[in-house]
Amino acid sequence: MFSEASAKMGVTYPKGFQAAGVKAGIKKSGNLDVAVIYTEKKAAVAGTFTKNAVAAAPVHVSKAVVATHTAHAIVANAGCANACTGAQGETDAAAMQKIAADALGCTLADVIVGSTGIIGQLLPMDKVEQGIHAAVKALSADGSVDAGNAIITTDTYSKAGATSVMIGGKEVRFGIIAKGSGMIRPDMATVLCFITTDADIDGVLLQEALSEVIEHSLNMISIDGDMSTNDMAIVLANGAAGNPKITEKNADYETFKETLLALCQGISEKIAADGEGATKFITVHVKGAKSFADAKTVGMSVANSPLVKTAFFGEDPNWGRVICAVGYAGVPMNPNHTTVTFGGIPVYADGTGVSYDADTLRTVMTAHDIVVEIDLKDGTEEAKVWTCDFSYEYVKINGEYHT
Amino acid sequence: MFSEASAKMGVTYPKGFQAAGVKAGIKKSGNLDVAVIYTEKKAAVAGTFTKNAVAAAPVHVSKAVVATHTAHAIVANAGCANACTGAQGETDAAAMQKIAADALGCTLADVIVGSTGIIGQLLPMDKVEQGIHAAVKALSADGSVDAGNAIITTDTYSKAGATSVMIGGKEVRFGIIAKGSGMIRPDMATVLCFITTDADIDGVLLQEALSEVIEHSLNMISIDGDMSTNDMAIVLANGAAGNPKITEKNADYETFKETLLALCQGISEKIAADGEGATKFITVHVKGAKSFADAKTVGMSVANSPLVKTAFFGEDPNWGRVICAVGYAGVPMNPNHTTVTFGGIPVYADGTGVSYDADTLRTVMTAHDIVVEIDLKDGTEEAKVWTCDFSYEYVKINGEYHT
Repeated sequence: MFSEASAKMGVTYPKGFQAAGVKAGIKKSGNLDVAVIYTEKKAAVAGTFTKNAVAAAPVHVSKAVVATHTAHAIVANAGCANACTGAQGETDAAAMQKIAADALGCTLADVIVGSTGIIGQLLPMDKVEQGIHAAVKALSADGSVDAGNAIITTDTYSKAGATSVMIGGKEVRFGIIAKGSGMIRPDMATVLCFITTDADIDGVLLQEALSEVIEHSLNMISIDGDMSTNDMAIVLANGAAGNPKITEKNADYETFKETLLALCQGISEKIAADGEGATKFITVHVKGAKSFADAKTVGMSVANSPLVKTAFFGEDPNWGRVICAVGYAGVPMNPNHTTVTFGGIPVYADGTGVSYDADTLRTVMTAHDIVVEIDLKDGTEEAKVWTCDFSYEYVKINGEYHT
Repeated sequence: MFSEASAKMGVTYPKGFQAAGVKAGIKKSGNLDVAVIYTEKKAAVAGTFTKNAVAAAPVHVSKAVVATHTAHAIVANAGCANACTGAQGETDAAAMQKIAADALGCTLADVIVGSTGIIGQLLPMDKVEQGIHAAVKALSADGSVDAGNAIITTDTYSKAGATSVMIGGKEVRFGIIAKGSGMIRPDMATVLCFITTDADIDGVLLQEALSEVIEHSLNMISIDGDMSTNDMAIVLANGAAGNPKITEKNADYETFKETLLALCQGISEKIAADGEGATKFITVHVKGAKSFADAKTVGMSVANSPLVKTAFFGEDPNWGRVICAVGYAGVPMNPNHTTVTFGGIPVYADGTGVSYDADTLRTVMTAHDIVVEIDLKDGTEEAKVWTCDFSYEYVKINGEYHT
């Protein structure tokens, strides 16, 4: 679905979008740190945000924009999260919005604001202002890579993707950039995910589609995510593709939603695999549940267990820790019916361990990508949760004293 | 409250109790691994157990004993948890009960059974049988230290305590032994806590008191706990003190419950401080909550955060991680009213960081014992949660591959 060329184009792959990333001196590293994404044709907008009661100032500002259902632009910075910054932080987030709106010639309510980086520090507003002006000047149809690099923090690489699909006889394109990693380094704030599409779709339906998609993609990463102070996923849909406008939940809507889901699941896997200090990418696949919610709860319980994560770091096929985390998830289950496999090899059944060939299982455990499958044998619903292991490097990164 | 001498006597400090611990060869180390606690005078019994759906076989056996409200003995082993052992595990737990009952001359329903150690392995029943016989022969009023050492696994020391209080003109004694540590090494199973008292108290009231006390003591340890497969806290009350029998919730009941609470809170602090790989003992004190449940939820959210725990390991006064964990706890809170102090020094207020003297705070962070106080300013209820930090050693211990 993703060609390398289109993936590089990211958020500028859909028609009518421009982007830029510039160096404004907010990151200590001197790397790119201010991004702008813009569509001249006004777009429908939808967003999902952190549920953390300690939400950062840009989250408050952007929620108000999403409530209007339309927008022209996203402005974001990395290096400083503008979180836990009190009244001054709210003022600064509003100022970012105004600077971008003035430079782009649109209204305040047309500009989404995002920030990520260190918590508890005020934005250096002089640098931010210069950065936004420079980014607006640099806007281009080739700017997605720079924009993607300008929003990363401790990520080891920028995450981007693009895809297209036929809707109503027209090619509809989607692009995405995202940053993660910080979820396991939350003095850095965490997930920013910006999606563009040239689909023509009603704003309320766009929100419904995004909310459902995020629940099945970004919210399935265990080192998540709705916990950080700054998380947001935003989609802009500018209608430039010229498809018949999607105004009801018809086949076109389903096609749109499925394409968006695939795009966001692809990004979610990349984010999980790039967790700080991660040496393994682990998919926890829970089957046989009574509901998706139950399957997700069990998967999250396993994926969030530091004991499961350290076992995978040690390449230890410790099914006891997995079934223990299943048992305390809070979902009724019968330990005598539940089965667990690692890389397709049964390790737990009938209430106890299963004999396995040690060499074969060793091959599974030493691989970078590992699939843990848990079958509750209690229904037909399922869920996949993505996570990473828990290494010395994790403790090192997070135990370092930065002042 | 605790004298060194009475603490050493532990579960044999109350009148009429005997105990023993012997080496049965179940632990690879060859250390003490089978314990028996016995009261000739039949005791009221109460218990609280893991809520994990994957409960171990001895938990099922002991729940049935507690349902009868009376018991004579506890038999326990370390080195093998008899968890995830299927039908054979249930048979073996029942056999442990029968062997002990026959040796002590009481009925099956008089014997509580506990196990702790490696999950997924069958008990070596020949060794267990010999061990129980040897322990019954060794029963004495000086046996508590041996019994305490026979139930530990990766604990660096055995936890014990004792206290006494006047009830109805009579001295009523309490003793306790417990093992923890395994909560952060759950291929070893976790908390066993055995309490004796010579109080005379109705069995139903005893259960009510124990349930309330455990909720405010052992269940306040973050690296807990109702998650493991084998957790149990048991109290035997044999009435040998001769106090007027407690049959209603009068002043005597309150005195009994408060004494039991102090005993169990003391043990809980010891268990938290002895977490595997721990270099810090952290008390998270949440104040100003609408309810105890809210305060506990917030405290657990902070105490369970790997990011908070690694920050304390790094002696980093990272209030951002603390307030972030408060924010995602799920309890409504206002970040602008909430305050956070480390060792009494304000670090967060009015929605942002507070200036502090770096040297003074450094003294707080480099100490072994650290108190984090969070005031939600939203009510009058409070809770204390005990935890430890999260070190390289933790990853090392739990990432090692044991076969």
